[in-house]
Amino acid sequence: MESGQLESKYEKYMKEALAEAEKAYSLGEAPIGAVVEYKGEIIGRGCNKRNSEKNPLAHAELIAIKQAADYIKDWRLEGCNIYITLEPCPMCAGAIVQARIDKAIIGTMNPKAGSAGSIVNLLQTEGYNHRVEIVNGIREEECRGMLKRFFKELRDGKVKE
Amino acid sequence: MESGQLESKYEKYMKEALAEAEKAYSLGEAPIGAVVEYKGEIIGRGCNKRNSEKNPLAHAELIAIKQAADYIKDWRLEGCNIYITLEPCPMCAGAIVQARIDKAIIGTMNPKAGSAGSIVNLLQTEGYNHRVEIVNGIREEECRGMLKRFFKELRDGKVKE
Repeated sequence: MESGQLESKYEKYMKEALAEAEKAYSLGEAPIGAVVEYKGEIIGRGCNKRNSEKNPLAHAELIAIKQAADYIKDWRLEGCNIYITLEPCPMCAGAIVQARIDKAIIGTMNPKAGSAGSIVNLLQTEGYNHRVEIVNGIREEECRGMLKRFFKELRDGKVKE
Repeated sequence: MESGQLESKYEKYMKEALAEAEKAYSLGEAPIGAVVEYKGEIIGRGCNKRNSEKNPLAHAELIAIKQAADYIKDWRLEGCNIYITLEPCPMCAGAIVQARIDKAIIGTMNPKAGSAGSIVNLLQTEGYNHRVEIVNGIREEECRGMLKRFFKELRDGKVKE
């Protein structure tokens, strides 16, 4: 694929991840969304539900990866790409490595807990048996803007996390 | 608690984690087990089911953490300890940090993928908002022995992973 085509593919699926982030926002959760794409088809979707489900594992990425594994009927998600509005935490970055996902396309980086380059880079650590290609900055303003709006409202007491 | 009492507490709960690892072994899975303990009670148990469930998230630790969160009714497992027969992978180490678990008691280290000191140490990384105390080498021979037996049988074609 040419770089222009790739760019528009990334934009297209990140829009779907943003739609998931909107769902999290409407639940009063930090707006983070993820989709897993396989051969042009979305086979897993997830949005952050950590508070509403009272579950430390209910991050967007883990929900999307589980759905994708159910679809593929294998724990190996080879040939799959994951689109995530925010740089993954260590748990989610580790899950992306465990599932042997090909590529992680990231909206905006997370200097506070990001584990695909900010604090550590688990997606590309020598020593693990799989490394993941990273593309970042796709629809960055939208991804960051949604989070900024949420945290401003949280500070202003308009939403409760 | 005195160090002798602590040691015998660790031994006691690691025996429970080993019982979980035995369950994984009987499923034909790499024998890895975990339990979550809260105020002296086991509130989460899990064994590795990655192959049998065709699920990259079905590691012992994640299963035990989910059960513990269901019990506590919170994503924060403060005051909880996790006992694991093998040093956690990055996903599971990340989940332990996400769940804000106090202490991880580890049977044997995993030089190939361990993320509590072997490859990286996610449990004690500056930058994340939580750090986990680590105790290791508890019932080490039993934990390592069970894994060695499994992988030897796998090589000899006696079990299929």
